[in-house]
Formats: sequence, structure tokens, C-alpha cells
Amino acid sequence: MTQNSEKTRVTVEIRNRSYTIVGDEEASHVRLVASLVDQKMREIHELNPSLDTAALAVLTAINSMNDYLTLKEDYATLLGSIKKERG
Amino acid sequence: MTQNSEKTRVTVEIRNRSYTIVGDEEASHVRLVASLVDQKMREIHELNPSLDTAALAVLTAINSMNDYLTLKEDYATLLGSIKKERG
Repeated sequence: MTQNSEKTRVTVEIRNRSYTIVGDEEASHVRLVASLVDQKMREIHELNPSLDTAALAVLTAINSMNDYLTLKEDYATLLGSIKKERG
Repeated sequence: MTQNSEKTRVTVEIRNRSYTIVGDEEASHVRLVASLVDQKMREIHELNPSLDTAALAVLTAINSMNDYLTLKEDYATLLGSIKKERG
């Protein structure tokens, strides 16, 4: 999902600012993703009230990227155990 | 990974700004995650040069959250197929 292309366009609001998200995903999915990002930014803001939007968004990105990498490892482990079992 | 606690502290630089990341992860892992976020922000910046840091970070967070949710579905599907096979 990026901002420039000829694909589906969905406008979402995150911390009182609008973003137009362009991608292949359905609008409902894009809105779900945006609401999770907004929620995570709010949680980090509650723990660190002095942070500005850029910092909240960077920390949210770091959190999400970390969750993604952790799950990627879990996925590889699961896949490895299946292959071993079938081996 | 958040900013306030008594855990490991790692300072990373993302788009010329420093962030102190606090968490249970090893420093090398935190640096890897931060470098991936920095790289993704750079990629989105190249496609959308007019965006400020906050917008780049929000879009990076949306991308990472989307990747996470997609992989979560893949993981659930894989787990489901194993259970069905063993069932």
C-alpha cells in the first residue's frame, strides 16, 4: 500500500489527519489496518504524552515491523516442523 | 517495544532523528527492525517526495501492519491445514 498508482483509493483518518491509501486491498481491510495503526499510536501516546505525531508513527511502525518479523520466524518454524514431519 | 520501562534501551536513528527503544529484544534485533523501518520510509519518500516525516511514518506503519495481518492469515491457514491433516 503506497500513495501513488491507479489502484483502489481509500481515505482514512489517523490522529486527525487524512491519508489516501492506494492498493489492491478492499476498502474495509484498509480501514481495519488504519484503525489498528491509529489505536497503536494512541496507546504509545498514552505511555509517552510528550511525543509528537512523527515519533508516535515511527514507534508504531517499529512495533508493527517487529510483530511482523516475529511472526515470520514463527511461520518459518511451523513450516520447518511440517517438512521434518513429512520428511 | 515502547519508550518507557526498565528494560533494554537501544538508541536508533531513523530519518536523522534518534529514538530510544525499550524492550526485551536484543540490541541487534532492534537495530534490524529500525533499519527496515528507515528503508521503508525512504522507499515511500522516493514515491512521494512531498510527504513529511509524520506521513511517511504513518504510511510505513500502515504497510507493516498490513504485512503483519496478511502473514497472520497465512499462519492461521497453515495451522488449519495441519490440524485438518492430523484430524
